[in-house]
Amino acid sequence: MSRYGTMYGPDITFLGVDRCTLDDPGSYADADVVIIGAPFDGGTSHRPGTRFGPSAIRQACYLAHDGSRPSLALRVDALRDLRVYDAGDVEMFSGDIERSLGALESAVYAVSSSGAIPVVLGGDHSIALPDATGVARQHGHGRVSLVHFDAHADTGEIEFGSLHGHGQPMRRLIESGAVRGDRFLQIGLRGYWPGPDILSWMAEQRMRSYEMTELVARGLDPCLTEAFAIAVDECEGVFLSVDVDVVDPGMAPGTGTPEPGGLTSRQLLDAVRRVCYELPVVGVDVVEVAPPYDHADMTAYLGNRVVLEALSAIARRRRDAAGGPPWNPQQPLLDAR
Amino acid sequence: MSRYGTMYGPDITFLGVDRCTLDDPGSYADADVVIIGAPFDGGTSHRPGTRFGPSAIRQACYLAHDGSRPSLALRVDALRDLRVYDAGDVEMFSGDIERSLGALESAVYAVSSSGAIPVVLGGDHSIALPDATGVARQHGHGRVSLVHFDAHADTGEIEFGSLHGHGQPMRRLIESGAVRGDRFLQIGLRGYWPGPDILSWMAEQRMRSYEMTELVARGLDPCLTEAFAIAVDECEGVFLSVDVDVVDPGMAPGTGTPEPGGLTSRQLLDAVRRVCYELPVVGVDVVEVAPPYDHADMTAYLGNRVVLEALSAIARRRRDAAGGPPWNPQQPLLDAR
Amino acid sequence: MSRYGTMYGPDITFLGVDRCTLDDPGSYADADVVIIGAPFDGGTSHRPGTRFGPSAIRQACYLAHDGSRPSLALRVDALRDLRVYDAGDVEMFSGDIERSLGALESAVYAVSSSGAIPVVLGGDHSIALPDATGVARQHGHGRVSLVHFDAHADTGEIEFGSLHGHGQPMRRLIESGAVRGDRFLQIGLRGYWPGPDILSWMAEQRMRSYEMTELVARGLDPCLTEAFAIAVDECEGVFLSVDVDVVDPGMAPGTGTPEPGGLTSRQLLDAVRRVCYELPVVGVDVVEVAPPYDHADMTAYLGNRVVLEALSAIARRRRDAAGGPPWNPQQPLLDAR
Amino acid sequence: MSRYGTMYGPDITFLGVDRCTLDDPGSYADADVVIIGAPFDGGTSHRPGTRFGPSAIRQACYLAHDGSRPSLALRVDALRDLRVYDAGDVEMFSGDIERSLGALESAVYAVSSSGAIPVVLGGDHSIALPDATGVARQHGHGRVSLVHFDAHADTGEIEFGSLHGHGQPMRRLIESGAVRGDRFLQIGLRGYWPGPDILSWMAEQRMRSYEMTELVARGLDPCLTEAFAIAVDECEGVFLSVDVDVVDPGMAPGTGTPEPGGLTSRQLLDAVRRVCYELPVVGVDVVEVAPPYDHADMTAYLGNRVVLEALSAIARRRRDAAGGPPWNPQQPLLDAR
Amino acid sequence: MSRYGTMYGPDITFLGVDRCTLDDPGSYADADVVIIGAPFDGGTSHRPGTRFGPSAIRQACYLAHDGSRPSLALRVDALRDLRVYDAGDVEMFSGDIERSLGALESAVYAVSSSGAIPVVLGGDHSIALPDATGVARQHGHGRVSLVHFDAHADTGEIEFGSLHGHGQPMRRLIESGAVRGDRFLQIGLRGYWPGPDILSWMAEQRMRSYEMTELVARGLDPCLTEAFAIAVDECEGVFLSVDVDVVDPGMAPGTGTPEPGGLTSRQLLDAVRRVCYELPVVGVDVVEVAPPYDHADMTAYLGNRVVLEALSAIARRRRDAAGGPPWNPQQPLLDAR
Amino acid sequence: MSRYGTMYGPDITFLGVDRCTLDDPGSYADADVVIIGAPFDGGTSHRPGTRFGPSAIRQACYLAHDGSRPSLALRVDALRDLRVYDAGDVEMFSGDIERSLGALESAVYAVSSSGAIPVVLGGDHSIALPDATGVARQHGHGRVSLVHFDAHADTGEIEFGSLHGHGQPMRRLIESGAVRGDRFLQIGLRGYWPGPDILSWMAEQRMRSYEMTELVARGLDPCLTEAFAIAVDECEGVFLSVDVDVVDPGMAPGTGTPEPGGLTSRQLLDAVRRVCYELPVVGVDVVEVAPPYDHADMTAYLGNRVVLEALSAIARRRRDAAGGPPWNPQQPLLDAR
Repeated sequence: MSRYGTMYGPDITFLGVDRCTLDDPGSYADADVVIIGAPFDGGTSHRPGTRFGPSAIRQACYLAHDGSRPSLALRVDALRDLRVYDAGDVEMFSGDIERSLGALESAVYAVSSSGAIPVVLGGDHSIALPDATGVARQHGHGRVSLVHFDAHADTGEIEFGSLHGHGQPMRRLIESGAVRGDRFLQIGLRGYWPGPDILSWMAEQRMRSYEMTELVARGLDPCLTEAFAIAVDECEGVFLSVDVDVVDPGMAPGTGTPEPGGLTSRQLLDAVRRVCYELPVVGVDVVEVAPPYDHADMTAYLGNRVVLEALSAIARRRRDAAGGPPWNPQQPLLDAR
Repeated sequence: MSRYGTMYGPDITFLGVDRCTLDDPGSYADADVVIIGAPFDGGTSHRPGTRFGPSAIRQACYLAHDGSRPSLALRVDALRDLRVYDAGDVEMFSGDIERSLGALESAVYAVSSSGAIPVVLGGDHSIALPDATGVARQHGHGRVSLVHFDAHADTGEIEFGSLHGHGQPMRRLIESGAVRGDRFLQIGLRGYWPGPDILSWMAEQRMRSYEMTELVARGLDPCLTEAFAIAVDECEGVFLSVDVDVVDPGMAPGTGTPEPGGLTSRQLLDAVRRVCYELPVVGVDVVEVAPPYDHADMTAYLGNRVVLEALSAIARRRRDAAGGPPWNPQQPLLDAR
Repeated sequence: MSRYGTMYGPDITFLGVDRCTLDDPGSYADADVVIIGAPFDGGTSHRPGTRFGPSAIRQACYLAHDGSRPSLALRVDALRDLRVYDAGDVEMFSGDIERSLGALESAVYAVSSSGAIPVVLGGDHSIALPDATGVARQHGHGRVSLVHFDAHADTGEIEFGSLHGHGQPMRRLIESGAVRGDRFLQIGLRGYWPGPDILSWMAEQRMRSYEMTELVARGLDPCLTEAFAIAVDECEGVFLSVDVDVVDPGMAPGTGTPEPGGLTSRQLLDAVRRVCYELPVVGVDVVEVAPPYDHADMTAYLGNRVVLEALSAIARRRRDAAGGPPWNPQQPLLDAR
Repeated sequence: MSRYGTMYGPDITFLGVDRCTLDDPGSYADADVVIIGAPFDGGTSHRPGTRFGPSAIRQACYLAHDGSRPSLALRVDALRDLRVYDAGDVEMFSGDIERSLGALESAVYAVSSSGAIPVVLGGDHSIALPDATGVARQHGHGRVSLVHFDAHADTGEIEFGSLHGHGQPMRRLIESGAVRGDRFLQIGLRGYWPGPDILSWMAEQRMRSYEMTELVARGLDPCLTEAFAIAVDECEGVFLSVDVDVVDPGMAPGTGTPEPGGLTSRQLLDAVRRVCYELPVVGVDVVEVAPPYDHADMTAYLGNRVVLEALSAIARRRRDAAGGPPWNPQQPLLDAR
Repeated sequence: MSRYGTMYGPDITFLGVDRCTLDDPGSYADADVVIIGAPFDGGTSHRPGTRFGPSAIRQACYLAHDGSRPSLALRVDALRDLRVYDAGDVEMFSGDIERSLGALESAVYAVSSSGAIPVVLGGDHSIALPDATGVARQHGHGRVSLVHFDAHADTGEIEFGSLHGHGQPMRRLIESGAVRGDRFLQIGLRGYWPGPDILSWMAEQRMRSYEMTELVARGLDPCLTEAFAIAVDECEGVFLSVDVDVVDPGMAPGTGTPEPGGLTSRQLLDAVRRVCYELPVVGVDVVEVAPPYDHADMTAYLGNRVVLEALSAIARRRRDAAGGPPWNPQQPLLDAR
Repeated sequence: MSRYGTMYGPDITFLGVDRCTLDDPGSYADADVVIIGAPFDGGTSHRPGTRFGPSAIRQACYLAHDGSRPSLALRVDALRDLRVYDAGDVEMFSGDIERSLGALESAVYAVSSSGAIPVVLGGDHSIALPDATGVARQHGHGRVSLVHFDAHADTGEIEFGSLHGHGQPMRRLIESGAVRGDRFLQIGLRGYWPGPDILSWMAEQRMRSYEMTELVARGLDPCLTEAFAIAVDECEGVFLSVDVDVVDPGMAPGTGTPEPGGLTSRQLLDAVRRVCYELPVVGVDVVEVAPPYDHADMTAYLGNRVVLEALSAIARRRRDAAGGPPWNPQQPLLDAR
């Protein structure tokens, strides 16, 4: 059984974690988390480049790529406390979106059905369809809610003559039943898309979308708390989808459809931490990091840290569930652990 | 009657709205808003490049340039709910500031006297003099207050031997009586200019300038509320002048005289929304977007969104004035409209 | 009949020439040349971004976009001496290469069958397949030779599981019979691709490929002269395909698969001029300009000038054919014309 | 006695203040502040380039380089109210860290023993060792506390086989006794370094390190107030060390080891102001500005403003100590001074 | 008598040569060369930024700024063998072209009348009018020929309503009689400007313009030799005007109106050397270096080296004239000198 | 025996060739070539960043990283026809030049004494000292000549108080006797360094240095032929040292001490090919690729291709020596091989 490796550039793994092979379930039988690269930007409606996202996110770090990252904030070392593998990339030809999304869904499902949490590095947001579908195939259609950080609702109908693209995955997910519309939580929307027709469709699905105005007026944390309650109502698992463009493009320029007025990086990291610490996350994707538009790799660094924050919070959640004292965000760093 | 078109690059309009011709009042007789490009950087004291601001602001968007932008936050489509035209650029030779400012004033006055709101895309801040003067000629000297977002007071006396330049328009406006000093509201000042002499002159004019320290200590929103009360005292109209350098240059690098420590993009958008929703705005300019220093067009995107935010709030204000329910920033996005 | 316009950004034409509509043959019935945008990068094997090539090439010029460009060197004004229209872009969804290439072929054929020369602005080199096929459908399979400037042979078999992509169009063209292998002239190849198997296939087709070593050792001009003789042997027309990566990436960085050691910009412009002045060109494409990797638009400028050089030489060829004195490259600029 | 001048580029001074010569104490006998350039990046573990930090920080300003900077916020002109000299750079060969740090320590001590406050422009953070040691030699080992803004604790043991480098200076300072561990205040730490062993060592030293989580949960200002109380307990002086990477790299990209999730520029400026206004600062360094990774000099601008903010607050502290009314952050800018 | 210093940034001199003051002729009474900064871009028709050219050219060097530069090729140290001063910048407000050009002409005339060679660092090419006029006032109208390296003829009539701008100085010079049309030698023209009317005017003036086609067809060196013969026919002095855009923009991107297909940097340096070694140069300007569009300062480096090459060749010419052996370009570097 | 791996970023090998371990001679016992990374920039006198050169050179390629690169020009696949390993990086702390150079010398000697050709990826040019010394220790002091492509002679005495640095390795090599001065061939020098004293020392050593003037006047190829004859006179081996700054910085900006007026990339590749095809090369280094100053990785691509060109020519030389027909640069690409 051969490993596909990486589609672009040298064959590296996320910060040096061990490799596994998707076609060989034994290679990740003991995994807690399997990282999958989805180097695809064929669904991008504007600036492409997210095909290099997986490679950029995997290596955007100034520390040794040694498979260890002890979190100062959460006091766990996710890459060691969890068993994390990197399966390399799925071959995704950007010129053939249907074939590519299909290949990715198979990969995600393989990981999910092994009992591990798939963490998919995009790639454009088209991939949320196979990502969440792959997980829902394992956990049950309608049994996984979706927490979605994004500037855009991604609930478009047809664009450029195609059902698939990075503006449409959320509609496809709801239409297929993989995710219930009323368990779809969107955080950070803003700007001038979509228009009334699509918003009506979203309302009909009973989605819950937090536009930035509401987040500012009410506060991000109360909104998250409200959303979290919905997320676990009749759902056993949560899929977390992070579009890096939820952050203000002035801070995270390396993305394809920048919409000013977003969260700060700090807010996103804290929110991702809360999702993964407080909710039963069963899948994650981090999408829309577009290196050609980045500067000094800053957006790739952010993508890397979003992944680490998610993994660290998952590790901490498991440790606390096993009987440890709960995490206290006000605890001084150097207090006894 | 021929249209001048654009001074640099292809002849495009703001996100695809219809064209009009300044010399042909009939072409914008039904306008609510007329956009005017002021591609001038001859008044810049440091980094030039704002001559490309109008072109950059007009097109910095990843959506179709179709003359439609439905605001998620305000539930209006400013480019359709209002009648918006783009008059193209005024010819402004950067090597001749007096002739250029004169030409712009005529253009702004033509629009203002037609009953439409001129929205001027700069260009360096020198243009605030003809912008506000052109409006004041129509609405009456001293009858239009000025709400001015900026890192700098722009109240200099003479620079490089010239009365005109991007550090001096506000003094010229007050000296001429076009705008009353005690109806001049400045938001976001900071840094190390001007010195005591100019500050004394400003105090004598009874200007009200909110330095960042005060904004942080008291909160931006209370300060805005206070300023708004002044703005409508004995003034029937408000001119809004937004220098993009009011935002922190770490988030908006494409500008000529960057001063660290500014607002976030989110804060600026929210503040512009409040101005245009709560006050009787009769003119707008958005200045100091300097594309040569921008990265991945992020500052141009911000300038584009400032314009859209202003127009959307104006549209919403008119709708509410016509009897609609008032805008509620805490309303969930998908609640019935 | 509506015009599609442009896929990305504002709807502009090449340096301001008139618009036409592909679906309305009457709109270009008198055309000598029709420009078509092919904003597609779904076939790119590495760095994407050529979807923005058409927009960048159309506007990369510091002169007024007025539909006039008098060539100093050739003493013609191609945009006026020829009747040049811009048909806008063909809708090409980068996630669906087969549909996209099909749409482009139809567009090129429509233009070619009208009697005009199609000039296609790419886009990645995948588009050479529909470009040359569209022309060959009109002029006869095997009746159009191909002069191909490129660092790469683009004769791959299958990549990423697909028959189509920017490394394979030349093989598909020969396989289909649209272009005869022994009328395929490649200029500027270098580097480390393809391997022996593909080279053997190319030799079997009796292609004539000039690697940089041969061009340096023998001189570019003698090689061109030799190639030109082949190009018009039993072929009535010539298709010119210019991949901007034939130029050294140190001079033209905005491209996807840079291979050091190429031609200078000056060499390319002179060679394109010779092709279009000396040969009966019936179609042109200019491909692989990738704006995200460009600096200060330099590669887009080069692409723009390649188009103008081709058009100017076509115009001059026609003028000389109509009885004018032949062009003399040694003639001083200010000598009587 | 000759002045070394600057190591890279033209010999300029910080915003045009007067020169002095380190070897000639008379040249700065009346100084309140002496600026010293430390153009060294030999201790950088990742991206180099801080050797150009001193030059970049000295000149990153759009105003005349005239040795005057009246602070709007603090109503002092630090460059005039204080006697500020620039001693140029210390020669620091990046290939020889031990010799370089030694030379810098001598320079800092010379300034400190003259009674002036040394303000050192880095350079990488390795220089904090000689900076704080040089000051402690004058004020007494253990008598100077350290307020340290940074994303990283910089308390590493040995890296790349060396005791010295930009990840280790704080350990060396505590080991030598120059600074007491329990008077070491760290603000802004985050991310995934160091690991448990080093954290344990830090806890043993009774350092007080505020990770971003605690700062967000409790608020930055209360944490600063708490830290300030520690800083002046049994210490007569405070050394302020500002690593620009404490700011979010999305806002300050020009640095070597970027860690997402930091402070805003506004927060850093306000915090530096508080340190220098409320505490008896006896030395300052501003480090890790790396121009090769900067965009449009934004990080250098920030570094320049951090220096000015520190100097302005020192000047204001002295004025108030001399009997002036205390500074009021809520006072409107144009109120009587 | 006070020195104006520099208009932007710190007050530095060209590679550290001594300062002089324009208003104080005694300060440069013994000068061979006086460098003058012309930080003006108000005449730019497209991309601005040349106002930062003087500062960038002065410091673009990796060697110590010590006022010494021994040329390997010419075996002289121009900055020491000649007496070179830097007069700083002339104040040139970019918003007032007439006043600015007047101030520069006075400065150039002052230097020229002192017997020194003025070397003006631009700034956009508008400044060639005062530069050459200032020299002609001293040497006699019509007694100074002009050797002009440029992609553009710069002989426009009126642009943007103005007689002055960077596309028109050469026409103004001929119209005024300062330079004879038939002693105007232009090297490197290309592209699509100007049109037939202006070319006819140029031909009527009997200008001699070498377009790139002729230079390639005949060879650059024979063309230069031919031009040099014209330059010294009835003219005692030669003014050298180097527009950096004569070099291919792929190699020198930091300029405002880039025209692909130019010389290489090597060719320009060799040609400048020949001009200054073989002809009696009485004035020089180097223009159109636009830092905002530069990358890694490469175009500024080129501008710096053009100045040094000119000065070195002038120094060598003087040494040879004093009886030394003539310069031999084939002599090995390490042969006895 | 553990492998050090890479100092910065993920542990990759040159285009995917196999790994070996320096401390385990068995791991490269059958090697023809061993690649060694020297990620050191502590000797850089100006712009740092070459520490990232090894990583950048290893991966700068758009083709699969599969350990195969068939050369179109030379008709060999160097990575397969030769046995090439990558030993990873030598740990080189940039803050300690003496220790770092010593470690590298040991590594190079280990490879050379195994019979393989070391190919060292720099890093700054300081490393030429250990590189050539390590080879000379094996082949005999004075028995290896040096062919050195560079803009600079690198024969400085002491800089910044140090005997070692990137401006001095060639002097150290000659002083130690490792390389004979009269077997030192320098190609491409230019600019303004060094001065007469150092040139005199060089002449005394009977070095042969080809300045660009001589190369242009006589032609590059005749000069190379002349130099090659010297290189093999009483020397059995040749060390090839390629400083990427020999290429014009307009084409290769990613370097630390750019000197305009250099070779083209094409010329460098052809020259490197001739060296390795015509001479008995026993060691190679490629230095001064500085990624922070690069654009779109173009200089890294050039470095990668210089390595491949050298390896391909070595492979072809060996094949021809084994009885194959000699390489013919005029042979058409598709002629029978």
